[in-house]
Amino acid sequence: MANIIRASVVQAATAAYSLTETLDKLERLTRLAKERDGAQLAVFPEAFIGGYPKMSTFGMVVGDRRPEGRDEFVRYAKAAIEIPSPAIARIEQISKETNVFLVVGVIERDNGTLYCTAVFVDPERGYLAKHRKLVPTAMERTIWGQGNGTTLPVVSKTFESPAGQGTVDAKLSATICWENYMPLLRTWYYSQGTQIYCAPTVDARPLWQNTMTHIALEGRCFVLSACQFAQEKDYPPDHAVANSEARDPNNVMIAGGSVIISPLGKVLAGPLLGEEGIITADLDMDDWYRGKFDLDTTGHYARNDVFQLRLVDPAVTSQG
Amino acid sequence: MANIIRASVVQAATAAYSLTETLDKLERLTRLAKERDGAQLAVFPEAFIGGYPKMSTFGMVVGDRRPEGRDEFVRYAKAAIEIPSPAIARIEQISKETNVFLVVGVIERDNGTLYCTAVFVDPERGYLAKHRKLVPTAMERTIWGQGNGTTLPVVSKTFESPAGQGTVDAKLSATICWENYMPLLRTWYYSQGTQIYCAPTVDARPLWQNTMTHIALEGRCFVLSACQFAQEKDYPPDHAVANSEARDPNNVMIAGGSVIISPLGKVLAGPLLGEEGIITADLDMDDWYRGKFDLDTTGHYARNDVFQLRLVDPAVTSQG
Amino acid sequence: MANIIRASVVQAATAAYSLTETLDKLERLTRLAKERDGAQLAVFPEAFIGGYPKMSTFGMVVGDRRPEGRDEFVRYAKAAIEIPSPAIARIEQISKETNVFLVVGVIERDNGTLYCTAVFVDPERGYLAKHRKLVPTAMERTIWGQGNGTTLPVVSKTFESPAGQGTVDAKLSATICWENYMPLLRTWYYSQGTQIYCAPTVDARPLWQNTMTHIALEGRCFVLSACQFAQEKDYPPDHAVANSEARDPNNVMIAGGSVIISPLGKVLAGPLLGEEGIITADLDMDDWYRGKFDLDTTGHYARNDVFQLRLVDPAVTSQG
Amino acid sequence: MANIIRASVVQAATAAYSLTETLDKLERLTRLAKERDGAQLAVFPEAFIGGYPKMSTFGMVVGDRRPEGRDEFVRYAKAAIEIPSPAIARIEQISKETNVFLVVGVIERDNGTLYCTAVFVDPERGYLAKHRKLVPTAMERTIWGQGNGTTLPVVSKTFESPAGQGTVDAKLSATICWENYMPLLRTWYYSQGTQIYCAPTVDARPLWQNTMTHIALEGRCFVLSACQFAQEKDYPPDHAVANSEARDPNNVMIAGGSVIISPLGKVLAGPLLGEEGIITADLDMDDWYRGKFDLDTTGHYARNDVFQLRLVDPAVTSQG
Amino acid sequence: MANIIRASVVQAATAAYSLTETLDKLERLTRLAKERDGAQLAVFPEAFIGGYPKMSTFGMVVGDRRPEGRDEFVRYAKAAIEIPSPAIARIEQISKETNVFLVVGVIERDNGTLYCTAVFVDPERGYLAKHRKLVPTAMERTIWGQGNGTTLPVVSKTFESPAGQGTVDAKLSATICWENYMPLLRTWYYSQGTQIYCAPTVDARPLWQNTMTHIALEGRCFVLSACQFAQEKDYPPDHAVANSEARDPNNVMIAGGSVIISPLGKVLAGPLLGEEGIITADLDMDDWYRGKFDLDTTGHYARNDVFQLRLVDPAVTSQG
Amino acid sequence: MANIIRASVVQAATAAYSLTETLDKLERLTRLAKERDGAQLAVFPEAFIGGYPKMSTFGMVVGDRRPEGRDEFVRYAKAAIEIPSPAIARIEQISKETNVFLVVGVIERDNGTLYCTAVFVDPERGYLAKHRKLVPTAMERTIWGQGNGTTLPVVSKTFESPAGQGTVDAKLSATICWENYMPLLRTWYYSQGTQIYCAPTVDARPLWQNTMTHIALEGRCFVLSACQFAQEKDYPPDHAVANSEARDPNNVMIAGGSVIISPLGKVLAGPLLGEEGIITADLDMDDWYRGKFDLDTTGHYARNDVFQLRLVDPAVTSQG
Repeated sequence: MANIIRASVVQAATAAYSLTETLDKLERLTRLAKERDGAQLAVFPEAFIGGYPKMSTFGMVVGDRRPEGRDEFVRYAKAAIEIPSPAIARIEQISKETNVFLVVGVIERDNGTLYCTAVFVDPERGYLAKHRKLVPTAMERTIWGQGNGTTLPVVSKTFESPAGQGTVDAKLSATICWENYMPLLRTWYYSQGTQIYCAPTVDARPLWQNTMTHIALEGRCFVLSACQFAQEKDYPPDHAVANSEARDPNNVMIAGGSVIISPLGKVLAGPLLGEEGIITADLDMDDWYRGKFDLDTTGHYARNDVFQLRLVDPAVTSQG
Repeated sequence: MANIIRASVVQAATAAYSLTETLDKLERLTRLAKERDGAQLAVFPEAFIGGYPKMSTFGMVVGDRRPEGRDEFVRYAKAAIEIPSPAIARIEQISKETNVFLVVGVIERDNGTLYCTAVFVDPERGYLAKHRKLVPTAMERTIWGQGNGTTLPVVSKTFESPAGQGTVDAKLSATICWENYMPLLRTWYYSQGTQIYCAPTVDARPLWQNTMTHIALEGRCFVLSACQFAQEKDYPPDHAVANSEARDPNNVMIAGGSVIISPLGKVLAGPLLGEEGIITADLDMDDWYRGKFDLDTTGHYARNDVFQLRLVDPAVTSQG
Repeated sequence: MANIIRASVVQAATAAYSLTETLDKLERLTRLAKERDGAQLAVFPEAFIGGYPKMSTFGMVVGDRRPEGRDEFVRYAKAAIEIPSPAIARIEQISKETNVFLVVGVIERDNGTLYCTAVFVDPERGYLAKHRKLVPTAMERTIWGQGNGTTLPVVSKTFESPAGQGTVDAKLSATICWENYMPLLRTWYYSQGTQIYCAPTVDARPLWQNTMTHIALEGRCFVLSACQFAQEKDYPPDHAVANSEARDPNNVMIAGGSVIISPLGKVLAGPLLGEEGIITADLDMDDWYRGKFDLDTTGHYARNDVFQLRLVDPAVTSQG
Repeated sequence: MANIIRASVVQAATAAYSLTETLDKLERLTRLAKERDGAQLAVFPEAFIGGYPKMSTFGMVVGDRRPEGRDEFVRYAKAAIEIPSPAIARIEQISKETNVFLVVGVIERDNGTLYCTAVFVDPERGYLAKHRKLVPTAMERTIWGQGNGTTLPVVSKTFESPAGQGTVDAKLSATICWENYMPLLRTWYYSQGTQIYCAPTVDARPLWQNTMTHIALEGRCFVLSACQFAQEKDYPPDHAVANSEARDPNNVMIAGGSVIISPLGKVLAGPLLGEEGIITADLDMDDWYRGKFDLDTTGHYARNDVFQLRLVDPAVTSQG
Repeated sequence: MANIIRASVVQAATAAYSLTETLDKLERLTRLAKERDGAQLAVFPEAFIGGYPKMSTFGMVVGDRRPEGRDEFVRYAKAAIEIPSPAIARIEQISKETNVFLVVGVIERDNGTLYCTAVFVDPERGYLAKHRKLVPTAMERTIWGQGNGTTLPVVSKTFESPAGQGTVDAKLSATICWENYMPLLRTWYYSQGTQIYCAPTVDARPLWQNTMTHIALEGRCFVLSACQFAQEKDYPPDHAVANSEARDPNNVMIAGGSVIISPLGKVLAGPLLGEEGIITADLDMDDWYRGKFDLDTTGHYARNDVFQLRLVDPAVTSQG
Repeated sequence: MANIIRASVVQAATAAYSLTETLDKLERLTRLAKERDGAQLAVFPEAFIGGYPKMSTFGMVVGDRRPEGRDEFVRYAKAAIEIPSPAIARIEQISKETNVFLVVGVIERDNGTLYCTAVFVDPERGYLAKHRKLVPTAMERTIWGQGNGTTLPVVSKTFESPAGQGTVDAKLSATICWENYMPLLRTWYYSQGTQIYCAPTVDARPLWQNTMTHIALEGRCFVLSACQFAQEKDYPPDHAVANSEARDPNNVMIAGGSVIISPLGKVLAGPLLGEEGIITADLDMDDWYRGKFDLDTTGHYARNDVFQLRLVDPAVTSQG
């Protein structure tokens, strides 16, 4: 009974290209998760800070690009945040004041390249770590760089038991959008003991639910998928849309589908569709043991004599 | 239009402990798939030959076992087949006479150990290869051994186009039951180019569908999951059942759920529930390209600089 | 006369599912071995810490499992210990205070998988090494993972001569229960020079004595087999028993049979049957030489030109 | 005087999506280079086999893609070639019959991923090696995978002296399009001794000439840049164009700019603009020594005590 | 019931140094096993043909030897047999006439070296194969050579069911005396599927029984240990004895202890002590499956990822 | 509009061998850049302080040197400056008074060795850092030493926006003359985020322009190349000249070619030829983002899994 963590997933859109408004929104939603639902942990969607420029082409076709695309990129790069930066300090402040552990999707700027990143921020310890998406999908490859082996953290956190009965330990990771289709990356996180597998995304297809359930079962971990719900009004007026002839501020750009699933594949909350909102569930951490009993893909269900997974020493392949 | 293979998945139970009757059933169902549905390929469930002793404990508890359990094992071992053997020759004959490529789940006996195996049998080339399950699940570990790196084939096959317009090439693999939760094994098959990913199983939980869909999307391959549909009458009268006080020949032991899914996650046939039967679909092999365009986890979506998967040289770890 | 080590084997049951009480029992028995028998070394049975859930099925039959089984596993997993952990620190403290070198069977928890492990704890150096059982037997395969090539230690220890005449060097190893039937594993330990071959077990069959004597002769080493003696009262009241209709707290669950045998096959102490207790013997380390004179299976009696045994490089097959 | 190789660069477009016609064109142009100009070596542009789908978006925007894009990809994937394949055999035949060493840009299909590749084909030895583009640019990242350290060949070739005075040795490499902006890749080729630095491309901007000249000077090698010259008529009628309202079969899609530059930065032939054609020059291989005298960036002008370049062991980071 | 073989173990002494008498004794005892006990298989002790020169020193001390010892060796060598030879033909004749499959310990002469060998002789196929002892023990090393990897047969035999109900297949091997302490040799035989593990010996210590039982359990095979029972009268009058001052024709030289044990460790016949004789048992070959169910050291209980056993290619290490 | 820095490049000759006059010239030209052009940053050519002794041989031939050459070196060494020194203080004063950030090519004297160095001097912070040329070219190697890994600074500077709208951040580096042909050095600067890539030089060949444009494109940085324009009259009367028989004070010794290029390859000012002068341009720092969008050779366009660049720890390779 005591081994429970109360976790929320926030489904919301970026306040497009306005860092200040987006941070305000982050604060407002974190406070709501805390005050209404008693959240100890909140997961925000992919690119919540910085924005997901859905439908943009940044002026590119194969073999050519237009100057307006470059200008759009400048605007997009400036809405991104550095780590550390005042924006990170603000997120630390929000976490501290609400006592909510935050996992937030951000667009990170590092030198001339942008990364699709998730940051882990602790109420007491502040910014802990970040994960950079390893492989952007399709057109994303033209605007985001690739993370590497130095940013694959599994973060330990000791929560207070909500019932006031001691503490509850948990390990958390983040895997962004279609990275969730990368079996070796998932295996890495399983091998590091992830228990709360956060999946910030903008993939709102119904098929996404299958993958979230599969991962919960494969990894025997809680899956917290936070998707954006975004409408045309959440983007600048000149932003590309699916159908430029039928612009409507209420048209849906990203449909949501945030969900919380247990290590035995049970849907605990969501999927939330068609609106912004917060879903919350009690995570009974004993379910992790219950799940591993059947299947532990990097423990009793591994075949290290047949397949070997190695994290290539980041010191070998990363600069600086 | 021409790039199509017509494939069936057979959902049926073993004729318990009778090898001859089971082979007769294999022939009857293969002929039906051919004659009724025009199948060029048929996939049979896990342990179709040999049987899946669901609900048995073979007289075991932790730290002890009863002699009756050993006798049950003798009976079970004798229903298993060796490779090669007259039983394999019979399957080759069935394949040849019907011109149907077969992927069949069998219990294989090798020396004193049984393996849960899938065999690939070609109408022209006869027996081609086998895959032995790498990790049996739970109680299965007490009756089956573990396969190793020497039995992980991806088999090439050139089919005739059903429309008579030349030939269609395909690569096939088999992954048995909860092996489908092993991300490194799946990655191996993807890296070898599997296009028709056969998944013989006895897992009839609704959650299984999520995993099948996930794999289709992750691997961008056709997934053909063949599950047994078995009732008490398909087992010997003295076989263990879920509720020994309410025995009924029609009680369901394994509920089915066979399904065919495309590389883009579309369910093409099934899931078939509550009865024996055959489901059939046209596999448009161009969908494999369509799928890989988005995601190729061992090609353009791999990060070999971060994660390295190695098949341990079987020569190093296998005997003989 | 000077080349003697005084060694005890403890035959006792786990204080079921209570880690604290079991550690207290470990301390009490270690002190008794020291004070009453003058032990310099004490070997405890398999799974002494954590417990051996004899007669349980954890709700499993082939192809199915019940939720209560998962809950039982959660309880069992929580009674296990991590390495390092406060429990290990406690064992180190007991060893230090009594000046008794300890070889203790424990259930080890690592991420989501449990292992049946033996730990080596030195009075001065603390925790030295561990051995994880390589192949669990029958139903154990459903609750424990498999060790690998990284945990096959042969530990060196310099004891004080009991007669105060200098020091006595010895090499120790641990082989758990039916691992003792693995000829290649034994050969590995012989090749590493094991002299005090510890065999924590729960196998109480009379046949076990044959194997212990054989190993002493084959390996020309001292064999110290520590078996649990457990009764129904040593388990929780709801624990499975052999005959649930004739429950009696005094019914024997594990019958013991602990024994100490010399390299020439002579039984020095035990087998102890039908009760908890401690057996102790003087190990004349010169007997190791006496035995090797006749037979040294990895020395003058090896045929390396005919058979080669290789320990597969653990770096090739183990993760992390 | 004797140390001369006669080299041609072919500027031409793919016969869009028709492999047969493109191979015919390859043969026709190779024969022309041989018969008219006496070429011993001919370099063809990037993606000459397979085609460069300029202006296409393959139905993608950030976060979404249309089914027509997938179909376009299927068509594109089928126009690509495997290595080996009948298409490679045809190129070998052309090389053999004309006695012209060929460096040809191709779209290579390997499993589900396409690569932008250059192949080296020898009149006598046939297919020798391939280079896969390491980093596709912008939108190309959505259709092509990334090469790795296993495909960075520098190929040795002994040519007959055109004046019949013995033989001339040369080392050749290929760097495709914007890879030419990768300083570490170029350094790799310099360190391997490239003398004839082939640069198949589709970059027709005038700025390209600056980079070609720079590389000739930096690497002190002959630079042979082969660019496509393509018009709308070289693409299928439904292919995307810059201005869909002003379609004209003669509109230029890729403007050319093929050029041959000496190791001292002298333009020997070209740049050819505004038409298909073949440019040819005599390469005085002694110029390579003349150039290295001043500058050898991986020799006397290297600072290995300050900067180290390592090719990461491909065995560490590549599969299979 | 049908899966039974009726097997005898003969406990007898060589008719010392007389080949003819010994062959006569072989015939007499084989006929007795057949007629009295219905034997289908009979195992004779180590060195039954040729003799085991117990107590001899052949005139040797370390660093010296006496001429009489050489003479004794001549006599001993002449009592040995070649393969093939009239003696082998005689054994074939005995086997054929009695329809008893024979496994016989012989001293084999090959050029100038003697080997301690076991021969397999089939009623229908005649002489099949031989096994030469790999490592003679102690003083044996001065009179016998060493076998190698070319003589490690596991022989297949189809017996008639004694109850006339079809046939029973079995695999047989032979391991001589202290070879039974060689774990790698035993593992080899297990991996080749031995089911009837013959152990001709002259080790009559009570401790031998422990090892025989252990091997039955470890290998899950029937163990048929045939020991000589020899008295002083079975040796020439001048043969060395334990106590030359108390010579008595009835003094026991080798005490026997022949035994038949099942794969589950049950003693089926014997141990026979203090007399010559024949012991016989029904081998229920299903017990092999029953035993393997628990433990198959080279199947489901192997850890090929940890330990690798290789039979060194005999072509590499053996002469001729 | 706000993100602009106004930058000048000065093309001028040293007042030969007169340090005082040269510093006066530095001050005069800096004030002119400020007052006439509004420069916030000014870059001076290679060896502007100290001089570039073009055409000298310092009396050397291979294997011999004349005493007059030594005397010339004495004179040259005395015209060089130490860091710190009164000359540096003077430069700091000029920078402070004009509020112009200076990058100046100097000949640096350190003990008995001269270095070809560039210094960074800030109006507020004074002298910041220096870069010493890593590899002198050809004859330069006889008069200058080699820099090492301790002098490869990338300097951060916050400028005031010229339009008075806040501040503009920039990072600056310096690469001297043919160092610009060193791909690993350039890569180092790119990886450190250089945005204003200063290239002091004396290379006045037209081919130099190709390399400057290439670097702007490769590094996506502003390139500010400052070349000397020098005539015979700028050298002592006895200085060596190209044609000693046609001496003329107006003969050109170094022809200039200073240029400013944008990260997209656009020439913003220059090349200035045939005269001393100052060229000036507005650097729109957003162009850096626009450029990186396409290409970031050490970010999204890097292949760290293939090539690894390491700066050797200067502590390992540098003295002091």
